[in-house]
Amino acid sequence: MASPSTLPADSVGSVDTQFLDLPASLPLDCGRELRAVRVAYETYGTLSPERDNAILVCHALSGDAHAAGLSGTAPAASTRDGFAAERRDGAAGKALGWWDGMIGPGKAFDTDHYFVISTNLLGGCRGTTGPSSINPDTGRAYGSDFPVVTVADMVRCERAFLDELGIERLAAVAGGSLGGMQALQWAVMYPEQVDSIVVIASTHALHTQGVAWNAIAREAITRDPAWQGGDYYGTGRAPESGMGVARMVGHVTYLSAPALGERFGRRLQSADDVRYTIGVPEFEIESYLDHQADSFVRRFDANTYLRLSRALTYFDLARQHGGTLAEALAGVEARTLLIAFSSDWLYPPAASIEIEQALRETGKPVDFHLIDAPYGHDCFLLEEARQTPIVRQFLGRA
Amino acid sequence: MASPSTLPADSVGSVDTQFLDLPASLPLDCGRELRAVRVAYETYGTLSPERDNAILVCHALSGDAHAAGLSGTAPAASTRDGFAAERRDGAAGKALGWWDGMIGPGKAFDTDHYFVISTNLLGGCRGTTGPSSINPDTGRAYGSDFPVVTVADMVRCERAFLDELGIERLAAVAGGSLGGMQALQWAVMYPEQVDSIVVIASTHALHTQGVAWNAIAREAITRDPAWQGGDYYGTGRAPESGMGVARMVGHVTYLSAPALGERFGRRLQSADDVRYTIGVPEFEIESYLDHQADSFVRRFDANTYLRLSRALTYFDLARQHGGTLAEALAGVEARTLLIAFSSDWLYPPAASIEIEQALRETGKPVDFHLIDAPYGHDCFLLEEARQTPIVRQFLGRA
Repeated sequence: MASPSTLPADSVGSVDTQFLDLPASLPLDCGRELRAVRVAYETYGTLSPERDNAILVCHALSGDAHAAGLSGTAPAASTRDGFAAERRDGAAGKALGWWDGMIGPGKAFDTDHYFVISTNLLGGCRGTTGPSSINPDTGRAYGSDFPVVTVADMVRCERAFLDELGIERLAAVAGGSLGGMQALQWAVMYPEQVDSIVVIASTHALHTQGVAWNAIAREAITRDPAWQGGDYYGTGRAPESGMGVARMVGHVTYLSAPALGERFGRRLQSADDVRYTIGVPEFEIESYLDHQADSFVRRFDANTYLRLSRALTYFDLARQHGGTLAEALAGVEARTLLIAFSSDWLYPPAASIEIEQALRETGKPVDFHLIDAPYGHDCFLLEEARQTPIVRQFLGRA
Repeated sequence: MASPSTLPADSVGSVDTQFLDLPASLPLDCGRELRAVRVAYETYGTLSPERDNAILVCHALSGDAHAAGLSGTAPAASTRDGFAAERRDGAAGKALGWWDGMIGPGKAFDTDHYFVISTNLLGGCRGTTGPSSINPDTGRAYGSDFPVVTVADMVRCERAFLDELGIERLAAVAGGSLGGMQALQWAVMYPEQVDSIVVIASTHALHTQGVAWNAIAREAITRDPAWQGGDYYGTGRAPESGMGVARMVGHVTYLSAPALGERFGRRLQSADDVRYTIGVPEFEIESYLDHQADSFVRRFDANTYLRLSRALTYFDLARQHGGTLAEALAGVEARTLLIAFSSDWLYPPAASIEIEQALRETGKPVDFHLIDAPYGHDCFLLEEARQTPIVRQFLGRA
């Protein structure tokens, strides 16, 4: 526990990531099964005796189970980067969770009332079974043999994990981006087990340009010779060059052009003038991207990146369920909260509006909030203060 | 000459690229000099006895001297790609110039009246001296030793080339994107020698996000081990993987998200469903990007890409001339035509408006046209029909 004097009153404090091994094999959309699946998770708050106050928080592509508070094991690499890195470390230099501003006493997901659970998702590289885990059939890392998982597979894994915790119903499933896809999938797949979903900066099906950006990021990795077809573990090489490029692409798409302009402009890295060079950063934005790439490469596995990127491009509720979005959502029983951000061009508000309309068509309860905010897709990580009253209101905690 | 029966009446016909060696060394912004510079060029129309009807057309990053008509040497790789590839080949399968719709009898740059000149720019890889050319000092390709050139250097090279053709004044300098930067630079650098400039989908200084995309493209190339610091000629390897990724990034930024959505949607490459794969294209947009990358890599040199990308991020009229755009443009004597496209988010209309305002502030004649068109930055190559009346009007040929 960090010194109480340095912890704000609304922090969940120091939290250790825990691990749970699923007792049964996990069936996957691709037709395969994964056995001996381990899930990394954290919990915040207290489960009620009635077990009716659990909220599952789902992370996006680069997150992990450490959603709130200070990482119990320091120095753990924080998943907070980009503009969110300014609030990266808490007391004693320990890493702050990726949604620390949203989870805690009196916060959006109020741990005075709710038992908040966060897991590292299936295919991940931060404790849950993924491509870098040991395959029990071979004794070696899965590598290229790890299956291509889907958002539905992630949700199946979360369902099986909650069974072990003895939690049947969820008061809410919440997440941004890929996390929001999981929330939608929960409402579609387990309609009787979810009271409400909070879907932030997300979509029912990524638009074409988003599919393109993800394809480019994956190409950057798979074209790196160090990727070695995915079997780079133990070779002393990893596709760090490609991963760096992938992260740079991702990072620019997560932010808005005006936000980048305001932060960096065309300021040069050197004193006065350009230096007529190719290989070294000349503009501040170039150094920033280099730095983002380097720190990401140190904490993230390329094969996990490839699979999560694939899963979020595959996700397509209409295609998976009957052809139209209204048909896909016909069985939903949960109340739905949708939040989108005006400057988010990767997961633009239009997708949330389509979900809202499809739910309304079939008479489902839905709230949609468009937040006018400048940072782009990363708003779901950065605009915590503005999401808080909306989420509290929706959960009946206004 | 292609068969007349297959050539439209407004075509300039079959054209051979010519070559001219500059007699003197070319001084560069970086302080070095290039000697034995060769310029690849094409001309369309007839130079008037008064030598007062010459228009210089400047190409963008991936263009070449073959701006109009059919390439005399078939099969030459066409620079027309992306959405423009639909009109890639003319009669007899010969490559059509990149601005064929704009240059010819009765077209925007009317070869019944004007003598239109197009050169491959300095640092290029399509005939003009660039990194893949033989360095006369060593007898080997320049590679990493080729200097980092600027837009001003390109214009100096064009000036020296026109001297050899005996052309002192230009009726117009025109171009889109990096070509528009050259037109602006001409008006600033040689104010008494330019009657008018046509600046399309361009800017006086690329915005931060544009600098970022270019940095990512260059990183993709320089991180490819086959780049070998730039000295890959003759090694049997070239950074084709990295170049492919660079081109994919470029391509997505050249088009608008709605245009990509309309063309490809989320259609799958295979018959019915996803195939749970990482390494092969699953969506049509993924195949399209792969194809764009492959064809670009075959026709373009990575070191040229690096230098042209650097030059267009360096370009900053205000920084280079006094600090403000108005100061930079204070000496301009040319009439200016600016065209921007509503859906162009890489060179957004805002930059053209800034140029317009700076010119107006100092009482210079300027026309600005915002064309409402859906394709993004590539509109300057695709929306030829809508640019034509504007350019003809501006040149006094309405």
